[in-house]
Amino acid sequence: MIKYQQIAAEIEKYIEENALQQGDKLPVLEALMAHFNVSKSTITKALDLLEKKGAVFQVRGSGIFVRKQKRKGYMDLLSNQGFKKELKGVQITLKVIELEVKKPTKEAAHSLNIGLDDDVYYVKRVRYMNGQTLCLEESYYNKSVVTYLNKEIVSKSIFEYIQKGLGVKIGFSDVYLYAGKLKQEEAKHLCLDSEAPAFYVETIFHLTNGQPFDFSKVAYHYEQSQFFVQTNSYFSKS
Amino acid sequence: MIKYQQIAAEIEKYIEENALQQGDKLPVLEALMAHFNVSKSTITKALDLLEKKGAVFQVRGSGIFVRKQKRKGYMDLLSNQGFKKELKGVQITLKVIELEVKKPTKEAAHSLNIGLDDDVYYVKRVRYMNGQTLCLEESYYNKSVVTYLNKEIVSKSIFEYIQKGLGVKIGFSDVYLYAGKLKQEEAKHLCLDSEAPAFYVETIFHLTNGQPFDFSKVAYHYEQSQFFVQTNSYFSKS
Repeated sequence: MIKYQQIAAEIEKYIEENALQQGDKLPVLEALMAHFNVSKSTITKALDLLEKKGAVFQVRGSGIFVRKQKRKGYMDLLSNQGFKKELKGVQITLKVIELEVKKPTKEAAHSLNIGLDDDVYYVKRVRYMNGQTLCLEESYYNKSVVTYLNKEIVSKSIFEYIQKGLGVKIGFSDVYLYAGKLKQEEAKHLCLDSEAPAFYVETIFHLTNGQPFDFSKVAYHYEQSQFFVQTNSYFSKS
Repeated sequence: MIKYQQIAAEIEKYIEENALQQGDKLPVLEALMAHFNVSKSTITKALDLLEKKGAVFQVRGSGIFVRKQKRKGYMDLLSNQGFKKELKGVQITLKVIELEVKKPTKEAAHSLNIGLDDDVYYVKRVRYMNGQTLCLEESYYNKSVVTYLNKEIVSKSIFEYIQKGLGVKIGFSDVYLYAGKLKQEEAKHLCLDSEAPAFYVETIFHLTNGQPFDFSKVAYHYEQSQFFVQTNSYFSKS
């Protein structure tokens, strides 16, 4: 982690530990510089990063303030797909339904920019939240990037493994969202009636060099899953 | 608009006009500086802005590349709530169902940080896409910020009016997403059976000073609406 990222993490910890709420003002720049014993440019970069993440907002001439969304039990749509600190006191468990090397579907091949004859790792898992069915996840990993997976690996965090174990550098993602009716097979895994509503999230994950390497499709149990996004000022409705 | 924002808009136009695709490389920094006749720092700021917006990605030592999501007919979740250039060749029309000054619901008061006795403008509208029902929108505007609305104004873009007409400065938003079953009243407006799936988007819009001023709840017709988000590298799944 680069210095300013580390400082950003520490400021987030500070906000957490002091239970600061939306609108609470952070100490002034000079105080932050002294507290963390770093330069002005490091603090500025750290605050810019936190603003991008939606953790703070800056008001010109007035200061830096905490952002905090108001609802409990909502998952952060764009961070860790929500399976971390947003859900404190919540236990996420996994069941692996399927793991195999196969040829991609047409949709997966298109999403991954590969041929229909190229190999992918196909992983199908169900996630549980405190023992309650949360979602059904199907992922296609380009095997020329994610060269190895086994049952033990996919029963934990695949992304942690491919970053630490395989040295894969994960960049940006394209995320697609829609609601729909559950298909019979999906409904079975989610313990819902087929035709029940589902919140679908499809994601194409890219390497830092822009190559797509993972196409995943997740069907969320509509009663168990709610999401939030903290947008920035460069996004606005017109 | 500040200079670098203007240049960012021109680079987006350049990408559009040249029909550049995901992964296409932009001209090098020096060429962009010469083309737009601006300093290196302006170009750099413009490119940073475009990266934040998910329009380009930068690969260290290699260049700047175009990002473009692959699916047609998807609306950009975080930009203009999707009602603009993402939907080319698409005509969005509005029907105003209700416009009145009233007291907020408990939920709206909480979202807007106001009392149950404060006044809000309540606006209920249906949007159509090429004549087809797209969504039902209910909005609560804090009347002490949005001091005036009338039927003519709400039959067009309210945000354009409050920015240009009232000088309101719009900042960040908190967006909440979930799927659910349509209530009878909603189903009626969307021309669907009640209990049909819906994609719900609730948004709290804030001023640049952090004050919430608009709480809106939108129920989307599940067959008509699909969304995308282009995330950046500071978001990643673990």
